Amino acid sequence: MVSVILLGAGNVASHLFEAFYNAENISVTQWYNRSLKKLSSYKNKVEITDDLNNLKAANIYILAVSDDAIAELSKQLPLKDQFVVHTSGSVNVYDLDKKHKRGVFYPLQTFSKDTSMDFANVPICIETINKSDYHILKELALNLGSPLKKVNSEQRRVLHLAAVFVNNFTNQLYRIGHEITESQGAEFDLLKPLILETAKKVQDISPYMAQTGPAKRNDKKTIKKHLNSLESLHHQDIYNLLTSSIQQTHGRKKL
Amino acid sequence: MVSVILLGAGNVASHLFEAFYNAENISVTQWYNRSLKKLSSYKNKVEITDDLNNLKAANIYILAVSDDAIAELSKQLPLKDQFVVHTSGSVNVYDLDKKHKRGVFYPLQTFSKDTSMDFANVPICIETINKSDYHILKELALNLGSPLKKVNSEQRRVLHLAAVFVNNFTNQLYRIGHEITESQGAEFDLLKPLILETAKKVQDISPYMAQTGPAKRNDKKTIKKHLNSLESLHHQDIYNLLTSSIQQTHGRKKL
Repeated sequence: MVSVILLGAGNVASHLFEAFYNAENISVTQWYNRSLKKLSSYKNKVEITDDLNNLKAANIYILAVSDDAIAELSKQLPLKDQFVVHTSGSVNVYDLDKKHKRGVFYPLQTFSKDTSMDFANVPICIETINKSDYHILKELALNLGSPLKKVNSEQRRVLHLAAVFVNNFTNQLYRIGHEITESQGAEFDLLKPLILETAKKVQDISPYMAQTGPAKRNDKKTIKKHLNSLESLHHQDIYNLLTSSIQQTHGRKKL
Repeated sequence: MVSVILLGAGNVASHLFEAFYNAENISVTQWYNRSLKKLSSYKNKVEITDDLNNLKAANIYILAVSDDAIAELSKQLPLKDQFVVHTSGSVNVYDLDKKHKRGVFYPLQTFSKDTSMDFANVPICIETINKSDYHILKELALNLGSPLKKVNSEQRRVLHLAAVFVNNFTNQLYRIGHEITESQGAEFDLLKPLILETAKKVQDISPYMAQTGPAKRNDKKTIKKHLNSLESLHHQDIYNLLTSSIQQTHGRKKL
């Protein structure tokens, strides 16, 4: 049994709590947040607190707070030689106060407020400063049914950056698809199977191999037609830049 | 039973053939291509020909050829008052020669050469000039188990344009994620569950609601860190443009 104290009340904290709560060999000893209000709906499931001086003993203290708050909160913790980890993609493990045994437990996934998450689909990137602490994080990930990977702070930073491209930026392209269709009398819903298939394709073949379309074929006639029918200059800029990018990747054009 | 003659031998033609061949109430009478070589591996399943003057009678003639070839091929067909459709997202139905009964059977999906496709996940956009021809295309789509939608040439053009954003451009963002990770010692494979989840999310909630990340939060520190660690100027341009786009959508910044 691994005992955990969770700190923070955002999206990641809430999803971790649900997953820990439902796992057989993990117990959540306590849940801290500086405001109790956000935790109050959980008070029958777990002990909640807003006082760091009330923190109990546990195998791991997990700081699931915003990037900017990690260093400061780790300093404030009235603990010494305890195992303290954060859950951020972009904060270095050494940003945690050195009075702690330190590590990172980074779930590489996008969490929505009201959607539950199967942790079998959440790769956990694990880092510890002391080798001997590694097994606790490994046990935690395995108990969630998650794939896990040893990833150092530099690799984690790179993954987080790449995640912005494949998640936030991709989602913005979906948004633009939504704007284009709905503003011109077509239905975004018809694009949903295509969106899913595009994501499924690269589970098995590389994005390089998966590419199709007018940019890759260098089909100038279609590209010109598309640019002419985009009403927003901003959409035209994105069309031009990503078309050049595809042509650079596939050797049609040097940038 | 609907009888079909297929013309062309590209990706769409091959996937349509397999789907028609496996459907109970569709028979492929003949498959035409200007070169027989590409069809030869199918010769035990269907009659193949490279001679337009050999074309038999059928309920529908489906031109699954490149956009540029549609008008010319439809003119060359030694037919009159037969039902002739094309499968393109961006070609107008009136580009088919007016000696035919004309329509469009556009499967809105991305097809890979070596991957089979479940047509339940392929919305078919249908258009006919004569109302009375509509039911044949409807029957064809229903026999494939596909969702279908009446879509005019203008709406189809818009869908095809939006598809470039959500498919080709999205796939290029996956490619950039691949470049960033693999060039800096991290594993692209760790991003695959995130890619799938991002696509799944917008099946149920709008892309607007699904957005997260540093651009939406206007987290300038992380944005600056990311820009500094992108080695390629081209990747920096894409990062800047899509960050602005997200901020414009979410009211952080006017463009």
